Amino acid sequence: EAVENCCDESEDEQDWVWLILREEAQQHAYNEPLLASFLFSTILNHKSLEAALSFHLANKLASPTISSTLLMELFRDALEESKDFRLACRRDLIAVKERDPACTFLLEAFLYFKGYHALQAYRVSHWLWCQERKAMAYFLHSQITKELHIDIHPGAKIGHGVFIDHGTGIVIGETSVVGDDVSMLHHVTLGGSGKKYGERHPIVHEGVLLGAGATILGRIEIGEHSQIGACSLVLNDVPSFATAVGVPARVIGMRLGRNPASEMQQDFRSSET
Amino acid sequence: EAVENCCDESEDEQDWVWLILREEAQQHAYNEPLLASFLFSTILNHKSLEAALSFHLANKLASPTISSTLLMELFRDALEESKDFRLACRRDLIAVKERDPACTFLLEAFLYFKGYHALQAYRVSHWLWCQERKAMAYFLHSQITKELHIDIHPGAKIGHGVFIDHGTGIVIGETSVVGDDVSMLHHVTLGGSGKKYGERHPIVHEGVLLGAGATILGRIEIGEHSQIGACSLVLNDVPSFATAVGVPARVIGMRLGRNPASEMQQDFRSSET
Amino acid sequence: EAVENCCDESEDEQDWVWLILREEAQQHAYNEPLLASFLFSTILNHKSLEAALSFHLANKLASPTISSTLLMELFRDALEESKDFRLACRRDLIAVKERDPACTFLLEAFLYFKGYHALQAYRVSHWLWCQERKAMAYFLHSQITKELHIDIHPGAKIGHGVFIDHGTGIVIGETSVVGDDVSMLHHVTLGGSGKKYGERHPIVHEGVLLGAGATILGRIEIGEHSQIGACSLVLNDVPSFATAVGVPARVIGMRLGRNPASEMQQDFRSSET
Repeated sequence: EAVENCCDESEDEQDWVWLILREEAQQHAYNEPLLASFLFSTILNHKSLEAALSFHLANKLASPTISSTLLMELFRDALEESKDFRLACRRDLIAVKERDPACTFLLEAFLYFKGYHALQAYRVSHWLWCQERKAMAYFLHSQITKELHIDIHPGAKIGHGVFIDHGTGIVIGETSVVGDDVSMLHHVTLGGSGKKYGERHPIVHEGVLLGAGATILGRIEIGEHSQIGACSLVLNDVPSFATAVGVPARVIGMRLGRNPASEMQQDFRSSET
Repeated sequence: EAVENCCDESEDEQDWVWLILREEAQQHAYNEPLLASFLFSTILNHKSLEAALSFHLANKLASPTISSTLLMELFRDALEESKDFRLACRRDLIAVKERDPACTFLLEAFLYFKGYHALQAYRVSHWLWCQERKAMAYFLHSQITKELHIDIHPGAKIGHGVFIDHGTGIVIGETSVVGDDVSMLHHVTLGGSGKKYGERHPIVHEGVLLGAGATILGRIEIGEHSQIGACSLVLNDVPSFATAVGVPARVIGMRLGRNPASEMQQDFRSSET
Repeated sequence: EAVENCCDESEDEQDWVWLILREEAQQHAYNEPLLASFLFSTILNHKSLEAALSFHLANKLASPTISSTLLMELFRDALEESKDFRLACRRDLIAVKERDPACTFLLEAFLYFKGYHALQAYRVSHWLWCQERKAMAYFLHSQITKELHIDIHPGAKIGHGVFIDHGTGIVIGETSVVGDDVSMLHHVTLGGSGKKYGERHPIVHEGVLLGAGATILGRIEIGEHSQIGACSLVLNDVPSFATAVGVPARVIGMRLGRNPASEMQQDFRSSET
């Protein structure tokens, strides 16, 4: 489909996500002159979404002892090597825009959503991890956690079209698996069982919604298109299309065909019964 | 009353909040020479509380792509335009000092409480929002969230004399309403119901205390002078002067005339029965 | 034992923690040239663990109005005055390496674990606090909270060998007491009872494990080697060697001789019954 085309080798294909971002940046710069310089340096000065994203993340994650230019080159190297990354950074961006009622421009998601920034920087750390560059992966992980307050271990596996809303306090452990099109809110924990080695974190299947503060512990599975209520503690598998709530969480309803990650309905009473 | 006088057009009125801050800053600089330069640049070098606050917030919220001088001018413009803002930034400051047993000087609240900083910066973002400068409001919102870990949407409506203690992880959604003299602790969420548009976040009336981790979802109302227990999940209206606790929260007591936001009593057992 | 020797006055004793850190830093710099400059400036350029730690913390906690050099000197002064501090910073480091399955080098704990950084910086703030340099202690507390999202009041008392995992959102109040060899995860709150003065925060005895989001309120005691489940709200004393879970928490099991802070078993079902 269209998002895939934008990453094709063929130069003829239009990268409509990037075109929209540029257009929105020009409009915003015109309406708000205080932001013009920021928008120029972050978006309009670049030749591709990948270049703009590398610049933006590098500025957010630099430290007194690692310069933003070094990080920017690292991000560009990662993005140029991996078509998967180019697809993911667009699908995640579209997911923010589609699922957050408070987000009216792709530009806002790209510039301002720290869940989006943390997820893209995690993707680079995971790429480093898979190449056995663990030292660099840990450095990046540490900067993401310090600067964006979202702690995603470089070893975790996360699909495309994932939306992290607000994001402060999220912890996703080393052997976690998160499927495509999952949505999660702030304070979510995918935590370990205490096992010293091997697979010890949850598997969250595609299309799941994890409410604010949902805490999921151990190598358990959350079935596709299920939703976990805010403040719930999940210690057992949850089937597909189910709603689970409480401390500890119990299944209170099921409805085939729904898509909770898109609906972002946190208050589940109205969706059950 | 006195706080209002300090914002009067008349130059004769004393701004006693600002006078106390300056006096405390001088005393602290004398006692702790390592802080003298910081205190001079942040407090003593300025002609008004507004100027000092603009300088202090700008230093906290600047980024590599937006300078602190640009932000400082923006804050000063906002403060000079709005008497409401000048009252609010004093009343919020006094609320910290009065309600936090660990705060012994107004200066500490002004310099160090990130809940206070986030609230004042939110007020500027809300001022921008009301003028339809949404791009700038979102930029500021994003910097507050990144630098202070407190996520208050620029569209939310928040009264005066509000005290945010600790503050990490707080999320206050776009259509939330928070009354005067509310106190809240860290990890509080005023979250949405999933409705795509319109009013979908809670209304918290005046004098309410929201305990650490309290999660309040949907367009529900928390009546005046009620208190919500730590770690509670609130999905229904709570009447005035009530205490509600649990997941989901239930009303466990009521007592007319009390003022939980002032008392900051988080452990509610002793206040009930 | 060995850790103590490294802090002896005698220069003959080997500081094996520091020797391992240097060796790991050299290896990492060789394997990952992008990090060579960072590792040289942060570790290899220094003559002692204390000097390296002072440099590293100062870079993390500096602000536009307080330089990293000023903070580095303050940290070095504190470390040189206190043998207790030199022991604590090594024991805390070893605790991270021993208890976190995802941590394979001491170097990672030293460079990247913000719980470790916050704890060492808190120790300096507590040293200032005990000397009645409260203004400087509050400044440091404020920077730790802003930069590392972990809020430990300078007045709190914390033992050695303490492991803070992930760490975002932790709040430890002014009169809290935390014993040796405690482990805690992110979002833990040791909160006040609302009393205006005096002892109003919890006492957590040695060897306790506090799960993610555990909220402990008031002057209550958590007995040695107990464990508190994730998302639990504790309002009453918990005996030694007990497991307490729920909102509010109840004791669900006891087992003499265990050491939950070492085992880091968050999902308690398998450890009870």
